[in-house]
Amino acid sequence: MLEISHRGQEMPSSPIRKLVPYAEAAKKKGIHVYHLNIGQPDIETPAIMLNAVRNANIKTLEYSHSAGNESYRKKLVKYYQSVDINVHYDEILVTTGGSEAILFSFFICMNPGDEVIIPEPYYANYNSFAVAAGINVVPVTSHIETGFALPPIADFERLITRKTKAIIICNPNNPTGYLYSREEMEALKTICLKHNLYLLSDEAYREFCYDGEYISAMHLEGMENNVVLIDTISKRYSATGARIGALVTKNKSVYDTAMKFAQARLSPPGLAQIMGEAAVDLPQSYFDATREEYLSRRNLLVSRLNKMPGVYCPNPGGAFYAMAKLPIDDTDKFCQWILESFSYNNKTIMLAPGTGFYTSIGLGKQEVRFAYVLNKEDINEAMDCLEQALLQYPGRTMEVASAPVREFERLRG
Amino acid sequence: MLEISHRGQEMPSSPIRKLVPYAEAAKKKGIHVYHLNIGQPDIETPAIMLNAVRNANIKTLEYSHSAGNESYRKKLVKYYQSVDINVHYDEILVTTGGSEAILFSFFICMNPGDEVIIPEPYYANYNSFAVAAGINVVPVTSHIETGFALPPIADFERLITRKTKAIIICNPNNPTGYLYSREEMEALKTICLKHNLYLLSDEAYREFCYDGEYISAMHLEGMENNVVLIDTISKRYSATGARIGALVTKNKSVYDTAMKFAQARLSPPGLAQIMGEAAVDLPQSYFDATREEYLSRRNLLVSRLNKMPGVYCPNPGGAFYAMAKLPIDDTDKFCQWILESFSYNNKTIMLAPGTGFYTSIGLGKQEVRFAYVLNKEDINEAMDCLEQALLQYPGRTMEVASAPVREFERLRG
Repeated sequence: MLEISHRGQEMPSSPIRKLVPYAEAAKKKGIHVYHLNIGQPDIETPAIMLNAVRNANIKTLEYSHSAGNESYRKKLVKYYQSVDINVHYDEILVTTGGSEAILFSFFICMNPGDEVIIPEPYYANYNSFAVAAGINVVPVTSHIETGFALPPIADFERLITRKTKAIIICNPNNPTGYLYSREEMEALKTICLKHNLYLLSDEAYREFCYDGEYISAMHLEGMENNVVLIDTISKRYSATGARIGALVTKNKSVYDTAMKFAQARLSPPGLAQIMGEAAVDLPQSYFDATREEYLSRRNLLVSRLNKMPGVYCPNPGGAFYAMAKLPIDDTDKFCQWILESFSYNNKTIMLAPGTGFYTSIGLGKQEVRFAYVLNKEDINEAMDCLEQALLQYPGRTMEVASAPVREFERLRG
Repeated sequence: MLEISHRGQEMPSSPIRKLVPYAEAAKKKGIHVYHLNIGQPDIETPAIMLNAVRNANIKTLEYSHSAGNESYRKKLVKYYQSVDINVHYDEILVTTGGSEAILFSFFICMNPGDEVIIPEPYYANYNSFAVAAGINVVPVTSHIETGFALPPIADFERLITRKTKAIIICNPNNPTGYLYSREEMEALKTICLKHNLYLLSDEAYREFCYDGEYISAMHLEGMENNVVLIDTISKRYSATGARIGALVTKNKSVYDTAMKFAQARLSPPGLAQIMGEAAVDLPQSYFDATREEYLSRRNLLVSRLNKMPGVYCPNPGGAFYAMAKLPIDDTDKFCQWILESFSYNNKTIMLAPGTGFYTSIGLGKQEVRFAYVLNKEDINEAMDCLEQALLQYPGRTMEVASAPVREFERLRG
């Protein structure tokens, strides 16, 4: 018998995927589905990027340098300077999306059987890359009651073993939108230096910070050898389909090892590198406008959610996600039900069930993630749908989660 | 101490890479370097492909389907029909280059510690993907004396253990250019069916067959569950920088598992998929002309080589590589020496040392790989250089390898 490898069997399916047939069925019935389930921005990719490809004088589309075109990496140095990150171009390795930077960093920093600590809820694909690399994810739980702030240092230290090699954070966070404070980043630095851990910092949403200060892991002094920055142009420029990211590190051993992985796959996508290079010339006004747009959407979304009885949504400081607690029995059932059995004015919504972002069993059952990648009119309509759905949903829980209940749940969790 | 993982340490550097500084130094001295060392075709990428991107009406470059755009996969069905491979579009998964298809197939078909048998000499990056996936490469040696024909079945069977899960072939072959015959493909089928092995078939050079019949692994009846086809547009259309490949299989478990790996990295490059889709409309005359060009280069290269005293180059049936035996002491030394200490009319050549394509220690020491990706005039000039280099090289071996010597070496190897 031909067999599928263990890791192939263990590789998780996308947690959203099981809802896709229900969304398709709803659409077939003529119901409009507002997609708040996926981080695919609706904002247009800047014309300067697409035009750069259109106007490129290419005769033969050759392999690029395995680390990415030197001209692009030199432009990226300028981009990073603009966000107070000082790196040399040979500390930047251009990757096929942020995804490849995650996979490379897992491959490089950990042996099979080693452990990476991740504050949960977290980006579900970290699990997939962990399975591919044969490493174990150890979640440290953050709580909606504290707005998904970084768990206390003691919670991390309790989980550190001989096998712990790294902590990965996403800042601003997907799925919570939480923006880590300077104190929290300093706490992470303390843990990493004390226990000799890599800090893998996924900063895909750097440009979208609304409240408080953006602190990159690359800003932490004395952490030069510990930090591996995972980056991407996907969200920054609404260019998710380009598949261009970067692994940035001042740790020369990590960089040199990443180069060996990069050489194996020859080069990152060629046309998309041209897009990335052109993007560096975008004026600050581009980011200001995009940020303004997302900020006003966040304000609308969060205020609509918190006005609904029994709903609690902390105000996220960044990214374009919000994680809310709903008065429901089971987020997976609810997210299926709104697609399968509900519509309001012939419309409904697709959401990402909270459970998909937790490893700890039973957590996130009342939570959903919203990606505010729709315009405000659509967000309003989507919130009208949700409001009605919560009134009609048979699995609605009656109690409004009170502070003591939440505290009990926190301790139990 | 922060440590680099074992696999990171074991990951091989590109075997060509160590020669790059010598090539750069030669260029700085004003010496022209003919690059016969890398499979980067000089032939232009068809305009129809680049224009498709230029004319694409993209507002937001979104994630594509994780398996690649449906429209592209449907076009690929047509392409595969043109080479007598009958597949459904949901048996095709578009990958980021052939590289990703190799990595996925290793992840899926083997557990860490499992073994894949590969006829050596072979594409060196298989080693890198094996290290990434934690699997072991077991080489089965093919010999220049037989033109690098498939080793006898008995040689494979001697190597098969409980851990053997797959055989990988490259057909037509990189680095040897060998085109496997129908009998050889049937022999592989027999071994795979008898021992329940996957046959991973890398057919990157399918379009470049000069003598004999092209038999795809997908043509083998009764092997539907065993075969995983690894494909790419890189060589077919001179578009190596696009980074678009495919994993094609009729084994539904393998396909579904590949989809989970594909979902983790979200989608293959978006712009390059547009190129791939446009390429399917290229007329047969495109392939005829390209094939003609490579064929005439092969004929020139092989005939020039075999006229040099002490040089033996079997006539390769496909791809755009040839592997020759030179009267030299050590291919690594020689390939460095021609860059560092030699020039002829202010010109020299860069070659790929044969040792980089073998796992068995000591093999390939007199062999080099030539990629005939230069026009005929340049190939002639490069051969003039080589001829002179072999006369001047201090490590030249005097004897011309005779048949008995070769036979002795074969038995010893």
